[in-house]
Parts: sequence; structure tokens; C-alpha cells
Amino acid sequence: MQEKEISQAVIGRLPRYLRYLGDLKERNIERISSQELSSLMNVTASQIRQDFNNFGGFGQQGYGYNVEYLYDEISKILGLNHSHNFVIIGAGNLGKALGNYLNFERRGFIFKGMFDKNPELIGQKVRDVEIKPMEDLEVFLRENTIDIAVLTIPKTGAVGLVDTLVDNGIKAIWNFAHVDLDVPEGVQVENVHLSDSLMKLSYNISRYNDGKEN
Amino acid sequence: MQEKEISQAVIGRLPRYLRYLGDLKERNIERISSQELSSLMNVTASQIRQDFNNFGGFGQQGYGYNVEYLYDEISKILGLNHSHNFVIIGAGNLGKALGNYLNFERRGFIFKGMFDKNPELIGQKVRDVEIKPMEDLEVFLRENTIDIAVLTIPKTGAVGLVDTLVDNGIKAIWNFAHVDLDVPEGVQVENVHLSDSLMKLSYNISRYNDGKEN
Repeated sequence: MQEKEISQAVIGRLPRYLRYLGDLKERNIERISSQELSSLMNVTASQIRQDFNNFGGFGQQGYGYNVEYLYDEISKILGLNHSHNFVIIGAGNLGKALGNYLNFERRGFIFKGMFDKNPELIGQKVRDVEIKPMEDLEVFLRENTIDIAVLTIPKTGAVGLVDTLVDNGIKAIWNFAHVDLDVPEGVQVENVHLSDSLMKLSYNISRYNDGKEN
Repeated sequence: MQEKEISQAVIGRLPRYLRYLGDLKERNIERISSQELSSLMNVTASQIRQDFNNFGGFGQQGYGYNVEYLYDEISKILGLNHSHNFVIIGAGNLGKALGNYLNFERRGFIFKGMFDKNPELIGQKVRDVEIKPMEDLEVFLRENTIDIAVLTIPKTGAVGLVDTLVDNGIKAIWNFAHVDLDVPEGVQVENVHLSDSLMKLSYNISRYNDGKEN
């Protein structure tokens, strides 16, 4: 595939396409027009065509899109044809929730290790993975091929950990700590700031209710 | 304040401003220029000015921004001057993690109830909140003023629950179920699709590595 710069906004929409295409696949639907996909997903057909044009189309005039082909292509674009090993740092409820989430494995994200500084948690298991002390993290990263570190620890701990992660081969950080991380070029960070999302909800509640009062 | 339509993209950036302004407040910094804020937050000063202009500015030529005033104004815009009661539906690890997250309370989001269909969980407590059976949800919503329902249950359960929530006064759904919910106009939904975020990370890893190989 010819690589060109695709905006993060488009990339951000691809997983949703993949989810709908996966549902269609499960229902044994072989092809779909951009109009049908549009009404299903509640986005304009022109948006869909524009998004897919970023990767060279995939559609055929009068036929529509082949669901399986489109599903596979988007999977490849998202890098889901490779598997990625990850460790979770922070074995609180959120870390455990992510470790137990089997859907990740279906997408090729393999849960390999879990670390925490709380001695009471050490030795407990989340699925087949035993929680290890933080002191073991560095050696573990060196001895295993781990792409992704999932940070489910408070922000102060997260900031101090970045160098250790990067120096030992981590390519990407999935960051749930409520802080922006400073990483070297080439290291990917995806933030999930849960408070931010909740505040957006709060804004929309207020705005709607203010509108009603006017 | 004069209400005008503000894009969701701008709204999406406000919590991050609030986070940085909160840090500045804690460090007793009283004012900051858009240039300083720009280098701190790693966004352009022009972006900052544009974003703030949506709400009528707040800045003064040659003085910069008053940190506390800006913090308070953005809080108000986000509706954080009102408190919001929420219930969590689904008492798995993710639900428990959210219930235990004290930061939400600091922002005026008050954890009032938790529901699950698993009989083994009923009666357990998350902070001061006792987990109740799903059968009690409807009455609970009618007898208490609850704005927000947090859904941390599988997608099939989530879809079937929307009507019950909306009919009993829920104004907003914070949706962690991996499905898009169909709600009546005026009900706000904020999705946190964790797999989608992980796939975006996977894309960025692939893209960076493909780039290196060329």
C-alpha cells in the first residue's frame, strides 16, 4: 500500500468503521453501498467516500463495498495484522479491567505482564498473568518483546516511568494517567483522560438545559 | 454569558486547558501569557487565542490571562459549577475503578448508586455505595435525582437499557459499552470505546515502523 499522510481525525474514525463492518460480517452480509453504511452509522455517504478515498477507495460503482475486503484492508491499515505484546503498569481496578478484556486479544493485543508497587498485590493473577513488583519491570522489558505499556497509575508515577519504558524498547504508551507525557520522537502516546471525557458530557448537559430555559 | 454554538473540537480541548490551569493555580501562578501557555501545553498561541475567543477572550493585551479567572470561567462553561449525580451500571473491574475515582467528586460528579445483575456482587460496597440488583434500578432512578448513567456492561445489555434510563430521568450516558447507543434528542452520550483508542495506537506504531523501513 502506498503510504501517505492520513489525518488523525480519519484514523480516529477507522475503528468505528471496523466495528460496523465486523457486525455486518457476522451477519453474513457480503456487500454494502456507501448510502446503506451511511444510514447505519449515521454519517454522510460523502464522509464515508472521502474517508475511504484516503486509502484508495475500495468501492466499485454500482456494486458498493465488499464487506470482508474492506474489513481486512482497514484492519491492515490499523496494523491489526501484526500482534502487539503489552504490559499493564498499575494493578488497581482499571488495570485489572484492561487485563481482563478479552476483546483486545482478538485484535492481536497480547497481555504479557502486570506490575505494581503495592506488595499486597504481588503474586495475584489477572487471567494467566502474575502481578510482579515494579523492580522487575526493567528486566522483564529487556527479556521480552513488549511494544506497548499501559499506564494505569497516578500521574506522578507515570511521568517518572517514561524513560525506563522508552530505554527498554517500549514503542507506545497507552496512557490513563491524568497527565500529558513527554516522550522522544517515534514513541507513540494515546491518552485516555477519563475526567476530560466526563467534563465534555457535563458541558453538553449544561448547554442543552440552558437552551431549554431560553 | 452569551451562548453560541461552540464546536465539539473546542469543547474537547477545554478540559486540558483546565488541567493545566489547575496545575498553575496550585503553583500559585497568577497570570500567564498565551505564549507561555502555548509552550507549556505544546499548542500554538494562536490556537489558544482562537479557542478562548469562542467565549469572549478572557485575556488582556500586555497582561496575559488571569489564571484563576480563566480557570473559573472554563469550569463554568463546562458546567462544573453544578454538581451531577451519577450511577454506575455494571460492577465489574471497570465500574469499580470509576466508582473509586475520587477526582470525579472533586469536579462535582457525585457517585450515588451502582447496579449489577450478578447476585454475587450484590451487597458489596464500592466506597460508601452498596451494589444493588438491576431490578432496583428503575425505582432508584425515580426516587433520586440522577443525571448521568455510566454504562460499564457488555453491549447487548447496554442497548436494552437505554429506554429505562431515559424514561426515568437520565440526561446523559457515559458509555463504555462497545456499541453506539440510539438515544432521544436532548439525551447526551459520550462514548469511551477503549478498543478504538488502542487501535489508533496500533496504527501509529505500524505507520512509524513502516516509515523507518522505507
